[in-house]
Amino acid sequence: MTAQVPLDPALQSALDLTGTFAFAVSGALLAVRKRFDLVGLIILAAITAVGGGVIRDLLLGRTPPLAFRTPTYLAVALAAAAVTFVAAPQLERLKPAVLLFDAAGLALFVIAGTAAALAHHLGPLPAIGVGITTGIGGGILRDLVAGDVPVVVREDSELYAVPACLGCVIVVAAAYTHRYGTGAAAAAVLAVFGLRTLAVWRHWRAPRPRALWPRRGG
Amino acid sequence: MTAQVPLDPALQSALDLTGTFAFAVSGALLAVRKRFDLVGLIILAAITAVGGGVIRDLLLGRTPPLAFRTPTYLAVALAAAAVTFVAAPQLERLKPAVLLFDAAGLALFVIAGTAAALAHHLGPLPAIGVGITTGIGGGILRDLVAGDVPVVVREDSELYAVPACLGCVIVVAAAYTHRYGTGAAAAAVLAVFGLRTLAVWRHWRAPRPRALWPRRGG
Amino acid sequence: MTAQVPLDPALQSALDLTGTFAFAVSGALLAVRKRFDLVGLIILAAITAVGGGVIRDLLLGRTPPLAFRTPTYLAVALAAAAVTFVAAPQLERLKPAVLLFDAAGLALFVIAGTAAALAHHLGPLPAIGVGITTGIGGGILRDLVAGDVPVVVREDSELYAVPACLGCVIVVAAAYTHRYGTGAAAAAVLAVFGLRTLAVWRHWRAPRPRALWPRRGG
Repeated sequence: MTAQVPLDPALQSALDLTGTFAFAVSGALLAVRKRFDLVGLIILAAITAVGGGVIRDLLLGRTPPLAFRTPTYLAVALAAAAVTFVAAPQLERLKPAVLLFDAAGLALFVIAGTAAALAHHLGPLPAIGVGITTGIGGGILRDLVAGDVPVVVREDSELYAVPACLGCVIVVAAAYTHRYGTGAAAAAVLAVFGLRTLAVWRHWRAPRPRALWPRRGG
Repeated sequence: MTAQVPLDPALQSALDLTGTFAFAVSGALLAVRKRFDLVGLIILAAITAVGGGVIRDLLLGRTPPLAFRTPTYLAVALAAAAVTFVAAPQLERLKPAVLLFDAAGLALFVIAGTAAALAHHLGPLPAIGVGITTGIGGGILRDLVAGDVPVVVREDSELYAVPACLGCVIVVAAAYTHRYGTGAAAAAVLAVFGLRTLAVWRHWRAPRPRALWPRRGG
Repeated sequence: MTAQVPLDPALQSALDLTGTFAFAVSGALLAVRKRFDLVGLIILAAITAVGGGVIRDLLLGRTPPLAFRTPTYLAVALAAAAVTFVAAPQLERLKPAVLLFDAAGLALFVIAGTAAALAHHLGPLPAIGVGITTGIGGGILRDLVAGDVPVVVREDSELYAVPACLGCVIVVAAAYTHRYGTGAAAAAVLAVFGLRTLAVWRHWRAPRPRALWPRRGG
């Protein structure tokens, strides 16, 4: 049984670029918070925006990666960096908007990554792995370069990878039942976006392993 | 003169998966110590388990990397994460066992990486470089994502890269003298494993460069 | 309109290896300052020296990367590590010389990366992206593995990425006007090297975004 992954190229491209812009803003805002200068801001915006997609394309053997085959991705990242540079205080006041943008970027990249992996004939589990990597890769690079523990593994993160995984599973299930199309892609994007924003709003956390060092006295 | 690198595929695969399991446990245990949640634990286990092999395959141009061409590697990493999640306190008490597993993973990955590089017609020095990278790559990614200085460069590490290098040299020497086979592979694995565990046990350290700032007063 | 990128291979190779040596010394010296042992010093020297070029080759789909196709690069990195190991105190006293070497490495790698990207038919903006990545990639990996925030985004860095970008723009402009050759390459190298050393000397900084948290009381 093979997976089938059609999606209107223009729609896919629009989703990709929206995700790129959203992630670039999140990188640039972290640079502002870290008091980096303009150069650090641009670099962090670009790494966050294209990092996940570049890792995805390297894993799938698509070189040069999409972000280097067309100038659009880097241009969008630079535009987002410029906007953030001049409007940082306003954007910071709009912190909820930034979280929404980041959730949108996560949703769009996860779905694009999973679909690309299936189109390269990867099996379900590897495709989910590539999808999650595409979604969280840029943010991991962003946090490492900024000197932070990546938000996706931090204990105060709200289910960042869980919605990502859910989105991958939806795409894989739809593709293997030959129901992948605009409708399934939209459902997957909404599921990732909805679960992530809900988790941030309600402060949901993933379970923790039992402590290695039991409380003393008790 | 060309190197010759035959090895029973089933045996090679068994070695690979054992190394994958061992490294995944080491990543998951670090996540427990860092008090990451279940998601962070799975991500750290997966990165540690497949990181070195993915870097090796990217360097050699084998895409998608082995860990994404078959579901076995990610499945083994997930199983190791699940075992660690429920059994972390017991595993921690078995810390020597974890060190042994990690040494086994190092040995198996180093040998597999060197052999793959030679099979791709790399010269001796580059093949040693790929072999060491395969062995230590996953651990470096694990430590970076966990917010630590990689154990392989830390001053309190016990010869982590030295046994790795020894194993590479054995494989290269055997391949160039047309003696590489199950016997030579076993000897190389045992050499890496033995030297690493001996170094941990006896707290052997590599030499340090002369201090930049000589002691005052003296 | 296509870009044209000829350069004498022997000259290009000499530039590459000089850059490799310079970057390896910078990595090894950081290891000395961090009090890593010999193994950490070698690893940091090698990562710094070949990191940028390996990322460039992976992005362009040139596998195995140049640094693994010929033993010269790793041999040069090892030689630089050995020299630093025995001569660290002297080199440290020559800190200005090290900064000059690092600036030379940056200049040489940036130009080589941009030219390689153009030769692979990348457009101007992506070629600049690859050029900058080649120049700063090794240093970013060096700083991450050493546990530092990469110097290129640190607020106390002196225009590290700005001269890199200038060099890329010169190469791209020359290539698209069919004037790229030894003269244009030399001009680009000198521009990067000159601007970087001038910025270090005069402590020039890039502009900073407006503060998110305005001073209270004011």
